[in-house]
Amino acid sequence: MPAVLAADLGGSHLRAAMVAAGGQLVRRAEFRLDPGLTGTAIADAVAANLAAIAGSAGEAPVAACVAVAGLVDADRGRVIFAPNIPGFRDLDLVSPLAARLGVTCAIENDATAAALGELRFGAARGLRHLLHATLGTGIGGGIVVDGRIYRGAAGLAGEIGHVVVDPAGPLCNCGTRGCLEAIVSGTAFAERARRLLAGGRPTLLAELTAGRAPTSADLFEAARLGDALAEAEIRHGGHVLGLALGGLVNVLNPDAVSLSGGLLAMGELLLEPLRGAMASIAYGPAAATPVLLSDLGGDGGLLGAAAIAFDLAGVT
Amino acid sequence: MPAVLAADLGGSHLRAAMVAAGGQLVRRAEFRLDPGLTGTAIADAVAANLAAIAGSAGEAPVAACVAVAGLVDADRGRVIFAPNIPGFRDLDLVSPLAARLGVTCAIENDATAAALGELRFGAARGLRHLLHATLGTGIGGGIVVDGRIYRGAAGLAGEIGHVVVDPAGPLCNCGTRGCLEAIVSGTAFAERARRLLAGGRPTLLAELTAGRAPTSADLFEAARLGDALAEAEIRHGGHVLGLALGGLVNVLNPDAVSLSGGLLAMGELLLEPLRGAMASIAYGPAAATPVLLSDLGGDGGLLGAAAIAFDLAGVT
Repeated sequence: MPAVLAADLGGSHLRAAMVAAGGQLVRRAEFRLDPGLTGTAIADAVAANLAAIAGSAGEAPVAACVAVAGLVDADRGRVIFAPNIPGFRDLDLVSPLAARLGVTCAIENDATAAALGELRFGAARGLRHLLHATLGTGIGGGIVVDGRIYRGAAGLAGEIGHVVVDPAGPLCNCGTRGCLEAIVSGTAFAERARRLLAGGRPTLLAELTAGRAPTSADLFEAARLGDALAEAEIRHGGHVLGLALGGLVNVLNPDAVSLSGGLLAMGELLLEPLRGAMASIAYGPAAATPVLLSDLGGDGGLLGAAAIAFDLAGVT
Repeated sequence: MPAVLAADLGGSHLRAAMVAAGGQLVRRAEFRLDPGLTGTAIADAVAANLAAIAGSAGEAPVAACVAVAGLVDADRGRVIFAPNIPGFRDLDLVSPLAARLGVTCAIENDATAAALGELRFGAARGLRHLLHATLGTGIGGGIVVDGRIYRGAAGLAGEIGHVVVDPAGPLCNCGTRGCLEAIVSGTAFAERARRLLAGGRPTLLAELTAGRAPTSADLFEAARLGDALAEAEIRHGGHVLGLALGGLVNVLNPDAVSLSGGLLAMGELLLEPLRGAMASIAYGPAAATPVLLSDLGGDGGLLGAAAIAFDLAGVT
């Protein structure tokens, strides 16, 4: 049975595995990147770690693919820009991987890979057209058309965090006012929690955080414990997310919208208003578009990278 | 040289032509639909008019396609709902066409057909991935992926008029607040002109309309004559349109965005803020995505229908 090397590279960690053709993680490891590394040194470390996994698995992979948290030019194997990985700007990542591993290698944007992961191995298995959203510190997205990743003209497709949902909204770190990611994301929820604390109205956040900066998890915990202000913030976020996804359903008319990422821990508090808003704006029969929750336990990007590697090796 | 029958069916008119393989309109006609007709009677009238064109051209078409202003299930040849054509709801349009014309027939949404028209014969000739927007009474859209129409799961893709750009904005006729079409469209500009008139501040619209209901053309004429309030409304519309299109550029990363429709008569007043806003939100290299203006003189839908008919007949 052929196996591939697959990895998911974030700002500080590398998750990697040998993956069998059915999507089973044969050997899996997580590496913390040395915070002193940058650019090509990180690329070399990724290659070395992948080689170590292949070595410990005792079998040669037929191909490899790394999903990267950043803009990726998959055709040329280059990272255009990964804001959270030091020195990852206009960087050739595929060449050091291929040199070290001795097999065909590819890279892909992590949210785009996650979309394919859900389609091949996860909640969206067997569907044709898919819109996938990753709900974490930021908001990412991936699009599958006719069972294949849709990358667009320059590999940039799927950046759903940067659609404007409120022209009078907060400034996004991309420089635009009112991007989806500036209103609903881990970072945006943390900012809303900070404002709640600063607002002076009584909130459980004060006790939960005891002076430290609040996180989106604090906001959720406060809501779970009955804090109505915190609950309203999360429900509002779910509503805005649903409006944005519903608009994209009108544009893309996918078979389903799938979701993954840390914000899903907020459960129905986020999802109930999300589904309601999405169905309210989705047009005609598209109002029935299902919302699927990832069942890949955070491994969607990894498994999507594996699917790309299998495709690369001609294994179906 | 093989030719096809192509048509563009709106609320009150049918534009139709025999089209040669290079996109030349061999014989062209426009019919006003009898306002007393509804549903299948309109379908029969369309078929009869197309048959008359073929007869007068003195040659048999190899296929036919009608672009329709409404939601279309192209796979099944049915109109799902066309709000401006009486009785066009869950209607089989292909069967009466095929019965009368005796060739393979298809139907398509008009904005989706227009996207293909621009790609094959117009401003976007030769591109791979295209987002096309039709800017008229309403806002429509069409998506081309890898040179082929992208229809989505149920043929509904491309409804870009129904993405939310301002959750606090005016109510759209689809029932959602702040859809793009409710803020920027012929209808929305007419409503803005009406409010300007009602607002009591001096505006040239008062003289231009002399008591009748203002149109979007009146708003543009007032701006052209130097009315600063009217100009600000159009520039604001262009800005919002640019934000929406820029967001969709981030999602789809097309080779270009192409535009057609009556609002283009507003020229740089609309387009300059549109381009600026689009480039400001489009992410990374996508900021350079070009905006192309249709050069098909309103025949994009017709020529797109012709392209579909040629594909149907296997003529390339």
